[in-house]
Amino acid sequence: MLIRLSQLFFRTLREDPVDAEVASHRLLVRAGYIRRAAPGIYSWLPLGLRVLAKVELVVREEMAAAGAQEVHFPALLPREPYEATGRWTEYGPNIFRLKDRKGGDYLLAPTHEEMFTLLVKDLYSSYKDLPLALYQIQTKYRDEARPRAGLIRGREFIMKDAYSFDIDDEGLAASYQSQRDAYERIFGRLGLEYVIVAATSGAMGGSRSEEFLTPTAIGEDTFVRSPGGYAANVEAVTTVVPDAIPFDDAPAAHVEDTPDTPTIDTLVAVANERFARPDRPWAAADTLKNVVLALVHPTGERELLVVGLPGDREVDLKRLEAAVAPAEVEAAGDADFAAHPELVRGYLGPGAVGPNVLVADGAERTAVRYLLDPRVVAGTRWITGANEHGKHVFDLVAGRDFTADGTVEAAEVRAGDPAPDGSGPLELARGIEIGHIFALGRKYAQALGLTVLDQNGKAQVVTMGSYGVGVTRVLAALAEANNDERGLAWPAHVAPAHVHVVATGKDPAVFEAADALATELSSRGIEVLYDDRPGRVSPGVKFADAELLGVPLVVVVGRGLAEGVVEVRPRVGGTTEQVPVAQAADRVAALVAELLAG
Amino acid sequence: MLIRLSQLFFRTLREDPVDAEVASHRLLVRAGYIRRAAPGIYSWLPLGLRVLAKVELVVREEMAAAGAQEVHFPALLPREPYEATGRWTEYGPNIFRLKDRKGGDYLLAPTHEEMFTLLVKDLYSSYKDLPLALYQIQTKYRDEARPRAGLIRGREFIMKDAYSFDIDDEGLAASYQSQRDAYERIFGRLGLEYVIVAATSGAMGGSRSEEFLTPTAIGEDTFVRSPGGYAANVEAVTTVVPDAIPFDDAPAAHVEDTPDTPTIDTLVAVANERFARPDRPWAAADTLKNVVLALVHPTGERELLVVGLPGDREVDLKRLEAAVAPAEVEAAGDADFAAHPELVRGYLGPGAVGPNVLVADGAERTAVRYLLDPRVVAGTRWITGANEHGKHVFDLVAGRDFTADGTVEAAEVRAGDPAPDGSGPLELARGIEIGHIFALGRKYAQALGLTVLDQNGKAQVVTMGSYGVGVTRVLAALAEANNDERGLAWPAHVAPAHVHVVATGKDPAVFEAADALATELSSRGIEVLYDDRPGRVSPGVKFADAELLGVPLVVVVGRGLAEGVVEVRPRVGGTTEQVPVAQAADRVAALVAELLAG
Repeated sequence: MLIRLSQLFFRTLREDPVDAEVASHRLLVRAGYIRRAAPGIYSWLPLGLRVLAKVELVVREEMAAAGAQEVHFPALLPREPYEATGRWTEYGPNIFRLKDRKGGDYLLAPTHEEMFTLLVKDLYSSYKDLPLALYQIQTKYRDEARPRAGLIRGREFIMKDAYSFDIDDEGLAASYQSQRDAYERIFGRLGLEYVIVAATSGAMGGSRSEEFLTPTAIGEDTFVRSPGGYAANVEAVTTVVPDAIPFDDAPAAHVEDTPDTPTIDTLVAVANERFARPDRPWAAADTLKNVVLALVHPTGERELLVVGLPGDREVDLKRLEAAVAPAEVEAAGDADFAAHPELVRGYLGPGAVGPNVLVADGAERTAVRYLLDPRVVAGTRWITGANEHGKHVFDLVAGRDFTADGTVEAAEVRAGDPAPDGSGPLELARGIEIGHIFALGRKYAQALGLTVLDQNGKAQVVTMGSYGVGVTRVLAALAEANNDERGLAWPAHVAPAHVHVVATGKDPAVFEAADALATELSSRGIEVLYDDRPGRVSPGVKFADAELLGVPLVVVVGRGLAEGVVEVRPRVGGTTEQVPVAQAADRVAALVAELLAG
Repeated sequence: MLIRLSQLFFRTLREDPVDAEVASHRLLVRAGYIRRAAPGIYSWLPLGLRVLAKVELVVREEMAAAGAQEVHFPALLPREPYEATGRWTEYGPNIFRLKDRKGGDYLLAPTHEEMFTLLVKDLYSSYKDLPLALYQIQTKYRDEARPRAGLIRGREFIMKDAYSFDIDDEGLAASYQSQRDAYERIFGRLGLEYVIVAATSGAMGGSRSEEFLTPTAIGEDTFVRSPGGYAANVEAVTTVVPDAIPFDDAPAAHVEDTPDTPTIDTLVAVANERFARPDRPWAAADTLKNVVLALVHPTGERELLVVGLPGDREVDLKRLEAAVAPAEVEAAGDADFAAHPELVRGYLGPGAVGPNVLVADGAERTAVRYLLDPRVVAGTRWITGANEHGKHVFDLVAGRDFTADGTVEAAEVRAGDPAPDGSGPLELARGIEIGHIFALGRKYAQALGLTVLDQNGKAQVVTMGSYGVGVTRVLAALAEANNDERGLAWPAHVAPAHVHVVATGKDPAVFEAADALATELSSRGIEVLYDDRPGRVSPGVKFADAELLGVPLVVVVGRGLAEGVVEVRPRVGGTTEQVPVAQAADRVAALVAELLAG
């Protein structure tokens, strides 16, 4: 393969695009790999398409190695199957919906569990047909509220989605493991660092789920790790619950005037000033903060919710959303407080919410739902709002003085928190989700009637798994992990070419020699990008473009030719070599082989 | 490549799907290549995907040979570019439109002229960058009123769309020819018979357009050919206009009572009975039929139209639609006639329509638009409606007694009609449109501001071409052209495999020998489908499946093995050979090489 830059449809930009927040987005646009067509929607230029094809090839090969067969579904799908599983509604505003000319409801599929389930139901009917694994590499759609970071969170993107079908739980476990292994091979071959973390299943449903994250500071996902090997998406971290505390000897709760203490800080200051306790000063952790939020259910229904948690922790909205999925979470507004005068801003306590509100027998319950952080176990004593402006209550004991409608994992996870499995203190890091695997179980098969006959001729609901790789996102993650201030620096396996040959100056002999070298390399199966642009394009521009494009090996044919040498330099690290022209092809081929092997 | 049927995700059907009208649809579903997901929307199973990949490969190779570079655009696109060229409206109900969560207007692109134009505008600015040819293989959407015939007229389908960009007309002519040549090579390599016919440009605009049709009785498109080599889509045929006839000596028009003659047949019968002329009987061709139709403009506006044409010809709605594009044509209804009492059903004549209606000076014109068949030249004499129930007018002379708002190519083309270029009588045939090429000219570049600087530094609007191949439709056309009563019969180049090895019976030695042969063939680079399903699947089922799937060479390992032979038979024609096991691989390899060469 030999691509001449004089013929290639590309243009590099010296300036960053104004909307680009992260390096991958900035550089993929500047180097002419992609262009924005609409928010979160991109067009692919020839070089971008080459990298994409290489990523897809690795995915295809490893899917085949895992015994998964490729199929391909439409992106435009009718409502009915998604209605049957509830996802038409559950996805809320996150899917694109449309009507055809006859008024029929359609969607642009965000993922294809329903269609795979129905296809297997259409074709198969016996346990002998299982296990089965199918996959597709396909364009997906998601109407993200905030598309960002170029390809990392887009609204039209390419996914590899695989699905497994088994007769029993052991089968599912094996299928899940097979895909998990394939993912390790895929990311390993792509040279993409990854962490496998426990995850929540969200709107997908199912019993077990893990995410593959590639660590990067610009990642949208926060994950935790412990020295003992625990790893989880922050949404999936469960709080280590302390033991309950006996409270028989606890003093009675007492309400105190605490004017001008609408925040935890002001409250703690006043408490220490006016209600100091002998053993140690009051701290934020002694206060119970009650945060008013609104859940927006997929039906559009809006429900107020109060979350009670230790005052030294914030509510993590992503953790709360994972806990209340498929509902989304919004801040409560003035209208909400106006509708609920019992929610006294800044002085809200448990007494005004949840089961602590006395409701007359038989009366319709109107109290706002109240959920507590799991740390608020029976016997813990709190300073908290007295539901009256300027007043707080002290020594309010959980389980004696108040209770709740349940617990919720909504508090932020902090570095140093204990791992739920006892494997030590957690550390936090950020990453990009590049893969997500789910043991779905029987949710979809049940909803859509996918059964097969077992050995005894009895119909059994099939158990399924679903396994996604964000193909375009993986490409962005590779760009994010492989760049420097001068441009992209692709790993050899996914680079748009192996070698970038630059001819500089205006001497026809240089162009002849460069052309001969490029042709020779190409004839040996090496992929060559050859900058044959005429002399009016300066060497500086050519070098800058070579570094921006990021092909792993750069060969310069220029002034050195007079002395019979060309310059060979790796895009990253390594040293520049002066190689005699006659040996250039051999030397470059050897270096390419090293890069591909390494 | 070796695919074992025991592992392959497929299922053959003995019954035709109820909605399948044509062989390709019926057999692709029955053989387990595709499945219907919604009207005009299909899912691809593993075997179908393999054929599709082979068709795409041929297209990609020939695009590369034509110097076109591959890019890839989103399917989901914002309204604005399509608004700028007018196509957002012109496509009427034929495109899928939707809104995103912020209320922005989007469409699922039916074709990408606008986006390619904008991308080239983004990247290029000089005549030195041209000529340029780009293409993509991409999923397209069209909300067809009547999706039909499986993949032949779908709502989600795959197209190769290429676009050329040139500085001047000569450049466009060369680019057009280059794509035209590539199309000939593509269809030639695929072994798909094709005819290139002149076509109309429709909503695409442009100066020149040709269609590639593959002749088949089930085709939706009618085309014409002459002995002298003229070929055109029936929509593009222009009528040979006779010379005007002097009418100074023509008798005056006279109205006659013709009760109960609402049709041409009844009119001709009464005319011959009561108004016989000496030289020859009246015929339908002597009457002028005036047909009331309604145009529906893309804006939704409805406009009545009367078409006058010789009574021996019908209005061809597809020809009329091509002539009035982007408007669509509907039959006029009772409400239309009620609103226009001057249109006397069955007795309508020119006097009631178009410029023949006397309109008071300065009055707003309200007469229905009247268009004539080009054969109705000045001096032709007609029997036609007198605009009064039960009356016709005789000797009404065109150009003397009536005129029209213009002419229109709306009459049906009939076998025997003269070719417009004088190359002899036309014959009619039907075909499937598999490619369409357009010399677009400057319409899109003008609308979207794509200019480049010429050699004198002056901005020049770029001239474009657009070139489409219906990839999924080509696959269906191949299936349509290559089947018999037993199933599909793929040409070797696009078949999902080269050889179909069948092991019959339950003898383990048979399966061992078949497995060894399949493995050996596969190791030689031959693509093998191996029916290794266990003995409970009868030989009859296996043979029927082999013929349904349509792989070009079938090898049966079965009872003959006891005598040391396997049976080798081509799917189509040829004779069955008994080949000694030891020579089987060589013989099969030779036959495959022949098939691929031939």
